Formats: sequence, structure tokens, C-alpha cells
Amino acid sequence: MTQPTKRKRDRAATRAALLAAARARFALVGYDATSVRDIARDAGVDATLIFRYFGSKERLFEEASRPEDTEPPVAEEARPADVPTWLLEATLRQHLPGASGGHPLTTLLLSSGRQECREQLNSQLSEMYVRNLEQLVDLPDRELRAELLTALLLGINVSRSIAHTPALTKACVDDIAPYFGQVADVLLGTSNATAQTSAPTPPSSD
Amino acid sequence: MTQPTKRKRDRAATRAALLAAARARFALVGYDATSVRDIARDAGVDATLIFRYFGSKERLFEEASRPEDTEPPVAEEARPADVPTWLLEATLRQHLPGASGGHPLTTLLLSSGRQECREQLNSQLSEMYVRNLEQLVDLPDRELRAELLTALLLGINVSRSIAHTPALTKACVDDIAPYFGQVADVLLGTSNATAQTSAPTPPSSD
Repeated sequence: MTQPTKRKRDRAATRAALLAAARARFALVGYDATSVRDIARDAGVDATLIFRYFGSKERLFEEASRPEDTEPPVAEEARPADVPTWLLEATLRQHLPGASGGHPLTTLLLSSGRQECREQLNSQLSEMYVRNLEQLVDLPDRELRAELLTALLLGINVSRSIAHTPALTKACVDDIAPYFGQVADVLLGTSNATAQTSAPTPPSSD
Repeated sequence: MTQPTKRKRDRAATRAALLAAARARFALVGYDATSVRDIARDAGVDATLIFRYFGSKERLFEEASRPEDTEPPVAEEARPADVPTWLLEATLRQHLPGASGGHPLTTLLLSSGRQECREQLNSQLSEMYVRNLEQLVDLPDRELRAELLTALLLGINVSRSIAHTPALTKACVDDIAPYFGQVADVLLGTSNATAQTSAPTPPSSD
């Protein structure tokens, strides 16, 4: 008979596999179009385990649409001047090769016919993006400026993961960072700050 | 017995009422969460008329998620320098009081679990936004620059109509235009152009 510790490891591994499969599925077609059967098949386990480990499709979705625990809060890892670049990288991270599952913002947008998803989207944007950007602004309309830069990040996510506009979809962080840095400087009034951190401006045609 | 011309007028009025009700409903909760019964009730007619006038819920959705015919193409009404401001106003128009129904971009995003909606979103962004902005750019990365400004417009739409972030939701065109104008200048390299058309920059705190 398997030892408790091994069973515990197996449970943890199964739970992690289900969560990764759920992140990927929900970020692909949203809540309504995703079936627990599909998620279980992707994870290579029986669908009943979803209910044993998460209780319901709703609870699994809630967990799958939160930023990953492995993602450190901005404050821990970024100097103020690095925050915009850090948030750009966080926005693009789940699109990078090897990233587990889809981006929480994509998941919530694809499911935003549901009121609770719109509320979750609102609080994720406020807590992870707007609040951190606001602190960099020492000009009038702090909140509006921070929300406009957040809107750009949101739009970049939608363009890449849902609308698939060609240039943004094939661009890498380094292609976008110089332009994003310039826009951040204009909106936040941080010209000197992000100038140090953002990649060099591409040559102009003249 | 009613005369043909009057019956024709009635049919046109009923069709228009159904289309307006559909725009509003689809832009509120998306395709899946909207029932033809709700749309018919909002329009004050019987649900069978939806099938008589539009053929199916899918056809009605296709028509309701296209930009309104009353919306003139950019070229007709805007000088090149006015295009960014014109697109900002087009993005915010359906949020203004008296606007009929919701914004096509919102409708498509709320329904973007469906592959055909993602394709429609892609083509609306390319044809109405990216193509018009690209023509203003005389610098490297024309397409990427145009897509980034389009992403900001898309993000502003999502922030106001889906995520309801407070500052952008309560802002009017004149609150957003100065900042949008500055970002457009940076991304498109049109400093002189939009400077003439965008509202004056708000005073800085120093």
C-alpha cells in the first residue's frame, strides 16, 4: 500500500496538473466554452478529481484566473523606475514559450459575460496595475494617468491573445519595451525614470 | 387593410428596434448569455420576428456587432491630423448618453470565446483602426506603432465597458483627449499634427 507521504505528493501533482490544464483551457475559450472533461483529459486524470480537489468548475476557475503564486508582487522585485517595465513583462509573460497556461487577464476577458468575472477583472487591474503605477505619478489626474497606461497593457494583452493583430502578436518584449517606455514616460511624467530602464529607442527614419 | 407602404414602414421600424435592442444586449453580456426572447422583449415585439427579419440569432449578432452604418468611414470626415482624435471619439461614442446600443468592440470581446468573433474583432481593428493610423507613420515599425495606439483604444474601451475602472469610466472625451493626443504623438511621431487638434495639455504640478 502507498505511503501517506507519496499519496500526498501524488495529490499535489494531480492538483497542479489540473490547475495548469484549467489555466490553458480557460484562457483559450473562456469559462462557458470549457468543459471539466476537457481539462481532466488535458491533465490525464478522471474528471471526478476536479470536484474532489477543487469542489466545482467555478472554484477551479477562480483559482485558475488568479495571477500565478510564483509571480512575486511588484514591490518585492522592482524599483519604482522599473515598475512599468515589470508590468509590461508580467503582461507578456504568459505568452512566452514555456509559460504555464494562459494569462489571467485573458481568462477573465474571455469569460466577462459573467458579472463575477468583470468584478474580478476590475480588482486585478486595480490591485496589480493601477495602484502600483499611481504611486509613480506626481502630476494632476494621477488615477486617470495610471488607468490609461493600464489600458494600454490590457489592450496589448487582448491584441495578442484574443484579436491576434499581426505585429503585436509576433513582437517580443524587447520590440515593445522601447515604445511602452516612451508612453509610460508621457503618461506618468517619469521621463528620467524609465529612460534608464527601458530598452533604447529604435532609430527614427531621418 | 394596411397599405403596402405603411406595412413597409412598420417592418423597417420593427427591424431597427430589434437591431438596437440586440446591440445593447450583446454589448452587455455577449452572445451566449443573450436570448432572442430578451431582445424581442426589449424591442416590444414577438421573438418570431427576429427569425423573420434576420434569419437567426447568429445573423442578428453579425449585424449588431458591425460598426453602425450611421458611422462615416474615417477618410470621409477626418484630415490625417484628426484621425487619432476621430478614432478616440469613435471608441467612446457608444458610451455617450443617447448612443444606440453598445460598442461593437465590446460586443465582440464579450463574445470572444467564439472563434468567429475573434476573427471579426481582428478585421474590425485592422480595417477601422490600424490601417488608418499606419498611414500617419513615417518611422520604422509602422504597423507595430499603429497596433500599439489601437491597443490603447481597445484597452480604454475594455476599461470603461467591461472592467469599469473608476477614473476612465467617469472620464469624458475632453478628459482623455489631451493624454491620448500625447501618446499618439509619441507612437506615431506626429508631434506637430495632433498638437493642433488635441485639447490643451493639463497643467503639470510644478
